[in-house]
Amino acid sequence: MENLLKEDERLDYLLAEELRIIQSPSVFSFSLDAVLLAKFAYVPKRSGKIVDLCAGNGAVPLFLSARTKANIVAIELQERLADMAHRSVAYNKLEEQIQIIQDDVIGIASKIGYDKYDTVTCNPPYFAANEASERNMKEHLAIARHEIHLTLEQAVQSASELLKQGGKAAFVHRPGRLLDIITAMRASRLEPKRIQFVYPKEGKEANTLLIEGIKDGKPDLKILPPLYVYNEDGKYTEEVRILLYGQAE
Amino acid sequence: MENLLKEDERLDYLLAEELRIIQSPSVFSFSLDAVLLAKFAYVPKRSGKIVDLCAGNGAVPLFLSARTKANIVAIELQERLADMAHRSVAYNKLEEQIQIIQDDVIGIASKIGYDKYDTVTCNPPYFAANEASERNMKEHLAIARHEIHLTLEQAVQSASELLKQGGKAAFVHRPGRLLDIITAMRASRLEPKRIQFVYPKEGKEANTLLIEGIKDGKPDLKILPPLYVYNEDGKYTEEVRILLYGQAE
Repeated sequence: MENLLKEDERLDYLLAEELRIIQSPSVFSFSLDAVLLAKFAYVPKRSGKIVDLCAGNGAVPLFLSARTKANIVAIELQERLADMAHRSVAYNKLEEQIQIIQDDVIGIASKIGYDKYDTVTCNPPYFAANEASERNMKEHLAIARHEIHLTLEQAVQSASELLKQGGKAAFVHRPGRLLDIITAMRASRLEPKRIQFVYPKEGKEANTLLIEGIKDGKPDLKILPPLYVYNEDGKYTEEVRILLYGQAE
Repeated sequence: MENLLKEDERLDYLLAEELRIIQSPSVFSFSLDAVLLAKFAYVPKRSGKIVDLCAGNGAVPLFLSARTKANIVAIELQERLADMAHRSVAYNKLEEQIQIIQDDVIGIASKIGYDKYDTVTCNPPYFAANEASERNMKEHLAIARHEIHLTLEQAVQSASELLKQGGKAAFVHRPGRLLDIITAMRASRLEPKRIQFVYPKEGKEANTLLIEGIKDGKPDLKILPPLYVYNEDGKYTEEVRILLYGQAE
């Protein structure tokens, strides 16, 4: 345990006390979006191969490991974040199931294989590289949140290259990019099949978009029931509490 | 009043007792979708020019007349339906505000004017012309519901041709056609800005899509709060009751 944590890192709980994850307020902490994506994505239950792109500190693969026995490969460009994810996987004794690879999402299929995965998940950078709003943040966060090293179109293309025919790619993004992500998916042979909008609370506009496409699938889009994050009293809804803590209050 | 109604037509109430509309179970009755569209669409409050395409028996223009003093032109291809709409407008003494034109939506801007309208509403045929499911129905209903004389792309193009720059087009359709309608709108210079999904009840998938685009607008899409039609007890929600009857119970 002595070398588990670096600098201001913490060991936080996931899903009550079943899993733990290394985070750092200054370097990277996972967001609710990762949790929503890990729940939304279709996963093969027993065997199968999953890739998580833009894995950050590994929240999506860790959450997925609670849902499936399938093999999970997680790709993260930033060495510092991949290292955090690697240590979290080791701490949870999940090295057999989860493999963290520090590499570029662009062209990753040429290294780990084309057309062979059942599911790809991706929580890509949300903001345009030139969006000034948050560019004062530290470099690790800037790269994770802005399209500096990876555009949405590149992320979608990489997901498609990895998937076998009929494989499923799930993305989380902002609703304002709905048209862009749909256009990118169709351009990369990923036919959108399921969309779920996430609303901060009742009566508000959606602030998160979950979308799943099937490689070479037929057009047949479903809009799932909305998901609300907070109740009127400002607390997590039961649905979100279960996602985060594995149980209702 | 003697010649007001033909065959099996009825004079139904709209918005409590404020308006009445001529309907016929065998020829055409308006659906909830028309009501939702008339409420969803942006309308100029006082002056301005609105066109309703695929007007049917005139439900959308009649509902719109309760929201705005703007001039409304309603286009309906079928003579029988346009005639019903015309008599309803006369009965409600709205001839000054609403003009019913029996004509083809395709190319209608060449007759009533390009680039001059503030708002276009359209509740187009939903089903592909070759969808067999309901083709046994009478011809009036078949034409109103199926893309026999008008495709989605043609309806979107006509809407765009009518609108001035910055004008707004609102459509109601099925969620399964979301990708098609977005593609058609962008191809016709209508940038999608607001989408609202309508769910039959909580926990179900959406079955209706409302979408508004601005001619030559900038990309900035908002997903409005969901709208539910029925409560758990199978009765209309308060929101829908107000749309239909102009008041809560």
